[in-house]
Amino acid sequence: MFGFTYYTPTKVLFGKDGEKQVGKLVAEFGGTRVLIHYGGKSALKSGLIDRVKAALDEEGIFHVELGGVVPNPHLGKVREGIELAKENGIDFLLAVGGGSVIDSSKAIAYALAEPDKDVWELFEAKRPAKGCFPVGSVLTIAAAGSEMSNSCVITNELTAEKRSYNDDIARPRFAVMNPDLTKTLPDYQTESGCTDIMMHTMERYFTQGGNMEVTDEIAEGILRTVMKYAEILHKDPENYEARAEVMWAGSLAHNNLTGCGNDGGDFVTHMMEHELGGMFDVTHGAGLAAIWPSWARYVYKECMPRFVRYAIKVMGVKDEGQGDEAIALEGIHQMEEFYHRIGMPINMRELGVEPTDEQIIAMAESCERACGGKKGSAKVLYLQDMIEVYRMAL
Amino acid sequence: MFGFTYYTPTKVLFGKDGEKQVGKLVAEFGGTRVLIHYGGKSALKSGLIDRVKAALDEEGIFHVELGGVVPNPHLGKVREGIELAKENGIDFLLAVGGGSVIDSSKAIAYALAEPDKDVWELFEAKRPAKGCFPVGSVLTIAAAGSEMSNSCVITNELTAEKRSYNDDIARPRFAVMNPDLTKTLPDYQTESGCTDIMMHTMERYFTQGGNMEVTDEIAEGILRTVMKYAEILHKDPENYEARAEVMWAGSLAHNNLTGCGNDGGDFVTHMMEHELGGMFDVTHGAGLAAIWPSWARYVYKECMPRFVRYAIKVMGVKDEGQGDEAIALEGIHQMEEFYHRIGMPINMRELGVEPTDEQIIAMAESCERACGGKKGSAKVLYLQDMIEVYRMAL
Repeated sequence: MFGFTYYTPTKVLFGKDGEKQVGKLVAEFGGTRVLIHYGGKSALKSGLIDRVKAALDEEGIFHVELGGVVPNPHLGKVREGIELAKENGIDFLLAVGGGSVIDSSKAIAYALAEPDKDVWELFEAKRPAKGCFPVGSVLTIAAAGSEMSNSCVITNELTAEKRSYNDDIARPRFAVMNPDLTKTLPDYQTESGCTDIMMHTMERYFTQGGNMEVTDEIAEGILRTVMKYAEILHKDPENYEARAEVMWAGSLAHNNLTGCGNDGGDFVTHMMEHELGGMFDVTHGAGLAAIWPSWARYVYKECMPRFVRYAIKVMGVKDEGQGDEAIALEGIHQMEEFYHRIGMPINMRELGVEPTDEQIIAMAESCERACGGKKGSAKVLYLQDMIEVYRMAL
Repeated sequence: MFGFTYYTPTKVLFGKDGEKQVGKLVAEFGGTRVLIHYGGKSALKSGLIDRVKAALDEEGIFHVELGGVVPNPHLGKVREGIELAKENGIDFLLAVGGGSVIDSSKAIAYALAEPDKDVWELFEAKRPAKGCFPVGSVLTIAAAGSEMSNSCVITNELTAEKRSYNDDIARPRFAVMNPDLTKTLPDYQTESGCTDIMMHTMERYFTQGGNMEVTDEIAEGILRTVMKYAEILHKDPENYEARAEVMWAGSLAHNNLTGCGNDGGDFVTHMMEHELGGMFDVTHGAGLAAIWPSWARYVYKECMPRFVRYAIKVMGVKDEGQGDEAIALEGIHQMEEFYHRIGMPINMRELGVEPTDEQIIAMAESCERACGGKKGSAKVLYLQDMIEVYRMAL
């Protein structure tokens, strides 16, 4: 077991109609001039942006808005937001959307705190952030966990680089979580979200020891819950209880509750997916599902106790004396079966992406750079390993 | 499922030697003049107070100290702390101890924010608090969860009233959790702590529905973990891993993670124990163990689904077609067996307390007043019910 810092200061308001309280929450956390940041037109059409604006108006809070954030959010939009925020003296970023919108808001918030510096330097690991303007969110997609996390992932659309920067100073001040707001999400997005949520916990679970029992218990509980409700939502997307379970699990899966005591986790699957996202603009969760089974088969022998425990406690594999290897492999197989049951791919072909070997090598090289040469806990992967996993995932 | 607010802003520094960072943490949260509050002489003898003072000195932070906080902390000591803090212009309360010391610090912190008012009024429910000075802690007992919770329990030693006041503004800014600091705790205190930790989760678990599946999974995982390590610590009190598991579980059990989505929980066992603590000054966790089995047998029929789930998922009772009632009762029996295995009582006689019927009625009447006439979720209890449960627990 390792020592750890646990810091989740985000105030969560969970339940129906929470967005009506957003003006009060912004005021509580000192916001007076707000940039409302959002994605596509659904937030406008549904009337959500209007409700948010009305809630801000009720508190007499100034606001401007900027939509158009895309999945795998672009640095260009971040720069647009920075300019707009500066012009309007913005002191609070309000993200209305999912992880992409929240991450775009966090990036703007970092930039506003150090207005003379280029924010992309954070993502290039050239310097740490010295400050960050306050961010709050009205969550509309359960997936990224950015509403409570310290992470921020931005894609430089000019270089096709998808890069992350993690810092506790960017943890949002509040998160409004109204499960109703996720009901209209298309099935593919919903299930990609469930996959992402599970992966945030799995990345912290497959390690070379160090995890605490209480952390493992919580992680396994979150995983079983998300699996159960992901299948329910595949058939019944308007099920409020299921939306709520997945939404809250999504925040807990990535606010580091499931990493307490571990060695920092593995996160190679995430890093390798970021390259897929940067090059092919795939949906993040689906990209994770396309990589994970190959990653798992590549590393499981060196992380056997965790794969066996996962198979038994999460995937429900029965230990009937078949031996650790058979149990571990059956767990991976059952995970693939689950992905298929919720309409997720288990390789890149099923994801709709067929990179050439040159593209695979390019992705692996870019991933290696982003990882600083190597990455992983279950098994430390280097360039050649990453190439191998991409090839297995074809 | 109910909507909820989840707010746990406490920064946790978990692991060996954490107390050496306490000066930096106080500075990070704006403290410049600190009252170090602690309990008995063990914190002095062990050198812990000296290490804390050295860490504050390193950051140039002014400090005074006040020891002598007792279990079921006294209002008199709170008043002494208020005076000392006012004399010294204290702006930060640093609790070095367990729940009693943290709660005493919170009460002083409430008083300093409204220096013209009597702090006991909060505990008499005469007014809400309008402010609270910042509190941080170096935890030495895993039990109360006060290091991350919004709760504060003080005993007015003149009237023998033990009363609680809960408000998010009192949630500590930081908690230093070094499991090594709990190793010298006597077995009875350790196991009373484990009992209290479990009860914080059980109070939120036994409800008339409303709990979320993910919350139940987390609750059950915490309970199984604490049971496992409570037994290990009973035999091997210096086991670091076990101390760490219990310590972290103690914070999670009462920071409301295990209450998300529920109706606010039951908490009758806690309220009835507070009367025992007020009248007989028993150890809180042991007092809970003495009450719970009788409470459980009194209410289980009206909360059958939860008692059955608890028996199976937490106590390991096998469903072999014996029927819900038999499963529920076996779960309660197994809980008693567990209490005995860790040296805890299962009734008041074993606790060493034999109240007269007059004293029982007095406790029940006081409890009824503290509960505003009735309390409970598994089953709503009134005065006569409380009398009955106390009598069953003799």
